[in-house]
Amino acid sequence: MAWILHNDTLIQEEELAISKEDRGYQFGDGIYEVIRIYEGNLFTAKEHIDRFYASAEKIKIVIPYTKDVLHKLLYDLVEQNEINNGQVYVQITRGDAMRQHHFPQETSPVMVAYTKTVERPKEMMEAGVHGTFIEDMRWLRCDIKSLNLLGNVMAKQEAHEAGSYEAILHRGEVVTEGSSSNMYGIKNGILYTHPATNLILNGITRSVILDLCRNLGIEVQETAFTKEQALEMDEFFMSSTTAEIMPIVRIDGQEIGNGSPGEATRKLQQAFEANLKLTVKM
Amino acid sequence: MAWILHNDTLIQEEELAISKEDRGYQFGDGIYEVIRIYEGNLFTAKEHIDRFYASAEKIKIVIPYTKDVLHKLLYDLVEQNEINNGQVYVQITRGDAMRQHHFPQETSPVMVAYTKTVERPKEMMEAGVHGTFIEDMRWLRCDIKSLNLLGNVMAKQEAHEAGSYEAILHRGEVVTEGSSSNMYGIKNGILYTHPATNLILNGITRSVILDLCRNLGIEVQETAFTKEQALEMDEFFMSSTTAEIMPIVRIDGQEIGNGSPGEATRKLQQAFEANLKLTVKM
Repeated sequence: MAWILHNDTLIQEEELAISKEDRGYQFGDGIYEVIRIYEGNLFTAKEHIDRFYASAEKIKIVIPYTKDVLHKLLYDLVEQNEINNGQVYVQITRGDAMRQHHFPQETSPVMVAYTKTVERPKEMMEAGVHGTFIEDMRWLRCDIKSLNLLGNVMAKQEAHEAGSYEAILHRGEVVTEGSSSNMYGIKNGILYTHPATNLILNGITRSVILDLCRNLGIEVQETAFTKEQALEMDEFFMSSTTAEIMPIVRIDGQEIGNGSPGEATRKLQQAFEANLKLTVKM
Repeated sequence: MAWILHNDTLIQEEELAISKEDRGYQFGDGIYEVIRIYEGNLFTAKEHIDRFYASAEKIKIVIPYTKDVLHKLLYDLVEQNEINNGQVYVQITRGDAMRQHHFPQETSPVMVAYTKTVERPKEMMEAGVHGTFIEDMRWLRCDIKSLNLLGNVMAKQEAHEAGSYEAILHRGEVVTEGSSSNMYGIKNGILYTHPATNLILNGITRSVILDLCRNLGIEVQETAFTKEQALEMDEFFMSSTTAEIMPIVRIDGQEIGNGSPGEATRKLQQAFEANLKLTVKM
């Protein structure tokens, strides 16, 4: 049986019972993170935990543990479950209270975390995947990693039904991000990606990539591009905690560049891989 | 102890356990309704149930019961709990499945319904309440009564902290609706309210009110108005299942009309009241 984290306690999975009036269940009133586990190590844990607290603060949930305590709890969970390669999912909601829209007076946040084994998507990272343009219908606070994910879910499903790996969201003509990823185009050696405004989630993998670009001498412009410009890029890729650096070789059936993962994308993948090996266990 | 409805079975409340991977809990991937109970009767139950199915269809959840079966189940619940005046809350999610954004292949929706006793807010309906303008940050499918309510929650909380009963949402300068209500202004005898587009939830009470206007000879224009126009209305009110027809006598501290509930609003309240008494028990 698997262990899960419930607030600050490790319990057996079957002991957990979420209330029907947990505000996560009725309002999506909470935030979350997914952290990748490589060789038993939580990759960029500090950055994910920082964002977890930042998201909570934006919706005024006060997490009743310090960042260090949470970090330790998540490591304990991963160790107890003996996860070598996988991920840890952690969410916190405003708590369990009689349903009303405004914040309840007396309740405590409910935190749940669990792990699963997940292999790296190596074959897809090698061959590249397809993307589909889908209109971005989401709210104007996409910078918050909240549990209000229905817009993302519907977009991903539409892309999935079109035979694609990811939805490439656009607000009007402007590409914002993926349904669970950030999007990048490379043209004449310059990497373009949407600036980290309220319209996208500022991915941890995105930050790693921008750092790697600096190391590799790839010029970065955090400038939004249109659908039309996306189709004319030399290379295109997406990033996320789970998909890492994933080349997108076709959009809406149309080849990007020569229809294979591009040279700069390959370099970034290699640098990302090398970076993983440098990660020091806590 | 209270009975609750879990899928098509009445169970004792403490027997219910929601899974951490219920898609309602992780994505807000579900829809809901709140139905008012007057004298043991479910008010406008048919309309609420129709909208419940319509919302489900919009996000491609297939409810595994007929409308008649659901209607009967909700009545059974209300009777078992001996609720005379109150409300029934019902929600359905896409089900319990390993977390991934796109729809899971093999899962069944999870439906939960429960009741509570709630008195009508008669004193507030008499005196009127205050409203606060809050920017509408929500997604572009507000016509779906989904569990993605964080935008509504944050707006309601902001209004609440400003000492108001409700947030009056505006997209740019245009008033859309409340955080959990529809909004109406009356000017020179004509009632104005936002048209039932993707930007608002088409309230059941809203439909009742528009019918009552026809009966009372009040001209209706389903035309959006601006914040500035709202402040210049002769009368202003909101409506919802719980708040019924609720006069708004001040917005952002500024008096609307003479600062008391207006004459047409009163007439609509009386007609609504008379309508309740005509409601026939199932």
